[in-house]
Amino acid sequence: MNAPSYRSLEQRFARMGAINEAAGMLHWDMAAVMPEGGHGARAEQLAVLGVIAHEMMTASDTAELLAAAEAEELDSWQRANLAEMHRLHTHATALSPRLVEAMTRARTACEKAWRAARPAGDFGAVIEPLRHVLDLTREAAAAKAEKLRLSPYEALMDEFEPGARIADITPIFDDYAAFLPDFLGRVLERQQSEGAPVEPAGPFPIATQKALGERVMGILGFDFRHGRLDTSLHPFCGGTPDDVRITTRYDELSFAGALMGVIHETGHALYERGLPEAWRRQPVGQARGMALHESQSLLIEMQAARSREFCAFLSPLLRETYPGNDAAFAPDNLFRLYTRVAPGFIRVDADEVTYPAHVILRYRLEQALISGDLALRDLPGAWNEGMRHLLGLAVTSDREGCLQDIHWFDGAFGYFPCYSLGAMNAAQFYASAAAADPGIPAALGRGDFSLLLAWLRENVHGLGSSLTTAEIVTRATGRPLDAGVFRAHLERRYLGV
Amino acid sequence: MNAPSYRSLEQRFARMGAINEAAGMLHWDMAAVMPEGGHGARAEQLAVLGVIAHEMMTASDTAELLAAAEAEELDSWQRANLAEMHRLHTHATALSPRLVEAMTRARTACEKAWRAARPAGDFGAVIEPLRHVLDLTREAAAAKAEKLRLSPYEALMDEFEPGARIADITPIFDDYAAFLPDFLGRVLERQQSEGAPVEPAGPFPIATQKALGERVMGILGFDFRHGRLDTSLHPFCGGTPDDVRITTRYDELSFAGALMGVIHETGHALYERGLPEAWRRQPVGQARGMALHESQSLLIEMQAARSREFCAFLSPLLRETYPGNDAAFAPDNLFRLYTRVAPGFIRVDADEVTYPAHVILRYRLEQALISGDLALRDLPGAWNEGMRHLLGLAVTSDREGCLQDIHWFDGAFGYFPCYSLGAMNAAQFYASAAAADPGIPAALGRGDFSLLLAWLRENVHGLGSSLTTAEIVTRATGRPLDAGVFRAHLERRYLGV
Repeated sequence: MNAPSYRSLEQRFARMGAINEAAGMLHWDMAAVMPEGGHGARAEQLAVLGVIAHEMMTASDTAELLAAAEAEELDSWQRANLAEMHRLHTHATALSPRLVEAMTRARTACEKAWRAARPAGDFGAVIEPLRHVLDLTREAAAAKAEKLRLSPYEALMDEFEPGARIADITPIFDDYAAFLPDFLGRVLERQQSEGAPVEPAGPFPIATQKALGERVMGILGFDFRHGRLDTSLHPFCGGTPDDVRITTRYDELSFAGALMGVIHETGHALYERGLPEAWRRQPVGQARGMALHESQSLLIEMQAARSREFCAFLSPLLRETYPGNDAAFAPDNLFRLYTRVAPGFIRVDADEVTYPAHVILRYRLEQALISGDLALRDLPGAWNEGMRHLLGLAVTSDREGCLQDIHWFDGAFGYFPCYSLGAMNAAQFYASAAAADPGIPAALGRGDFSLLLAWLRENVHGLGSSLTTAEIVTRATGRPLDAGVFRAHLERRYLGV
Repeated sequence: MNAPSYRSLEQRFARMGAINEAAGMLHWDMAAVMPEGGHGARAEQLAVLGVIAHEMMTASDTAELLAAAEAEELDSWQRANLAEMHRLHTHATALSPRLVEAMTRARTACEKAWRAARPAGDFGAVIEPLRHVLDLTREAAAAKAEKLRLSPYEALMDEFEPGARIADITPIFDDYAAFLPDFLGRVLERQQSEGAPVEPAGPFPIATQKALGERVMGILGFDFRHGRLDTSLHPFCGGTPDDVRITTRYDELSFAGALMGVIHETGHALYERGLPEAWRRQPVGQARGMALHESQSLLIEMQAARSREFCAFLSPLLRETYPGNDAAFAPDNLFRLYTRVAPGFIRVDADEVTYPAHVILRYRLEQALISGDLALRDLPGAWNEGMRHLLGLAVTSDREGCLQDIHWFDGAFGYFPCYSLGAMNAAQFYASAAAADPGIPAALGRGDFSLLLAWLRENVHGLGSSLTTAEIVTRATGRPLDAGVFRAHLERRYLGV
């Protein structure tokens, strides 16, 4: 093969990839181990790495190389790599340096104002900085929409989940919104009739929780030669595919949050670790998008780890780890603890049944904000009306309403749908895996994730960004995303139908 | 001030400084927390950061900017910064890319061969890869010598300790070699007549050792808002001035090694932390050189922490930490434990009296290797003869002889003298600090390092690289390095004269 332009691009993107990996490690360090006094220097380091990577991407000859490489003879992975290079280049060059700098500044100011406004529930205190962020985001969305030939909101989503389209998502979310009220009523009625599950009694020392977390990570297939478990304020999965760093946070009075955090992040970690090794630090070797990423964490957490089968496996492990809680750790009681449904105000605390309602609300509102159909001063009212409509809850403070999430205040419009698309994709992947290999659920009951992981490696992880999410889903499950599979999962799990 | 070329250089070096800081953090991570499977990706990240920094340094217009800035109006710190930029540029451009790459490759191969040859004591197995490293090092030394107008060996030393000159060092080392045999005999005789000190009885749990280490770090003035203590195979001080990461290693059967490691690295950390804040990420804001760096760690460890005063302070702390060792932790017994002299084969295990002999041996041999006066095949014999002459010891295996240190096999010729120059500078600094503020030794007896630290901040740390080491020593102590101060310290401590 002789493809000089493509080869040059590969070298340039390999450099950018290494810089991004370095920045990723420094981000992990900042969240997991850095002393507070390190922030100033770290900000300098990350800013310089960001500028250097951006300069490489937007160098004057990159566009020429991209055009020339189109005419070169490439195999399918190289072709897909080139397409990703194009997409990243378009995103990077669509915005003027002036706009990028203004957005960075506006986001920093707004996030700071939000940190003060949230505890006070004072939306008015953040409306001006948020307006500035929103105005710039709309400007950026318009600029990207033109280059990407998408609607402005889709152009924003494309950064997080390439290929996400309103025409695909809206009907899925509308169907779920219509399905939810009646279904939720039946689930709550059924759970009430069963009575409350037994709660395990603590305290649960943190060292024991960490050891349990690492043991469970090993069971799920996490390779500690290529990763670590640490602690941070917000659990996340960082690092690189060859060195995956996940974190959780601990509460001495309850271990379930930390353990489920570990399991969720391990799902992300398994995806990163399974990315195609031959394409490290190339665009096509990266994880596809955030919806697909979330599908992998939710598949491991919601589909696999909260299943009756895995609860049966976990039961003796928990009894051994925390003696004196035999009733709480009975398999059926564990399952009921881990599938408790309760509508609430806070997205991050939501169960898998009500979670999509939180996302649908935000999806509708952020589209209206970007299009201009909703004015910022009307956001709290629209939020509260949406919560009443979707979950029947009356919001009494913006602290538990439109101020709860950092996303918008940090300029991340278009991200929210990824969470529920992920949950729905997860259900569809898991159903197809179990159909392809009917031994998978029973294996989870023995703490054996190898069959499931093998299916995921072949059907999702190993594909990197060589296909679109829709293509990956169709290839793996025989059809595009079908939210009916998610609903069927919920009906089976929560109503036993 | 209007100095456009200088300003451009400042911006460029600020970027390089941020990249070097990022690389420093990644090196810390690699040694302290990285899982083994992360090595490949980390090597890529560090290689790319190194190449980018090197390209910035050697960019075609850097030389022109350096020349133009010379004519601009600069204050004394800017002038010193420019001089450091010149020096770094000269080092970076003196070698051809071909030579740099060949050296990297040869060092990697030689270090690998050395790791196998050392445990076997098989110098013959490493002689060919070492010859390759030495040949390339001599080529590099010649190239740098021409640019820097130094002798080849001095050009190598200049990378580690700028300004180090054979004409200054050789007489100092020769004097010490002449002083040592008689002095050592008297010390050993005296220690024998006193009988052996009482050894504390363990085990000493690692968590307790770490807590003690952090407590002592706090006493020495380490600021945990700007740094951490971790564990690694070889203790070191890494990170950045705003985020200093030190490490030690633990032995459950003996806590003194880990504690003294912590104290030593804290000395390095205090220096880094005290560098001039206004010059972060600029050449003039960096630590001066390795001899001066080592003087700061040895000042804290050897001059301050192993003093009678600090042993008296440490005594109740150790009794509280490890109950049941009252006799071992008596102040006088502690002092005797921490000032035990015993000639041995291994440099890193040596006491402060015999340590210089190890360095003098290597200093003489590496000069002869670089000049060509000593052939590699004759190295083991020359080594063993030197050990007999300097310390009266008969080496029986190269494992405990010329194979013990990684330095030469990793291409680091010209580094060894820094250790003993550091010890001698440390004695001179401490004597001057105690003369300037006679309350300093008594304050150490109360665990109060603030007076000593204030003197070091003003006289060493805060100067960064704005002066040469010789200028810093002269400014702080009234005269250039005088090894007589070090000898006087030894005579006082070990013979009570």
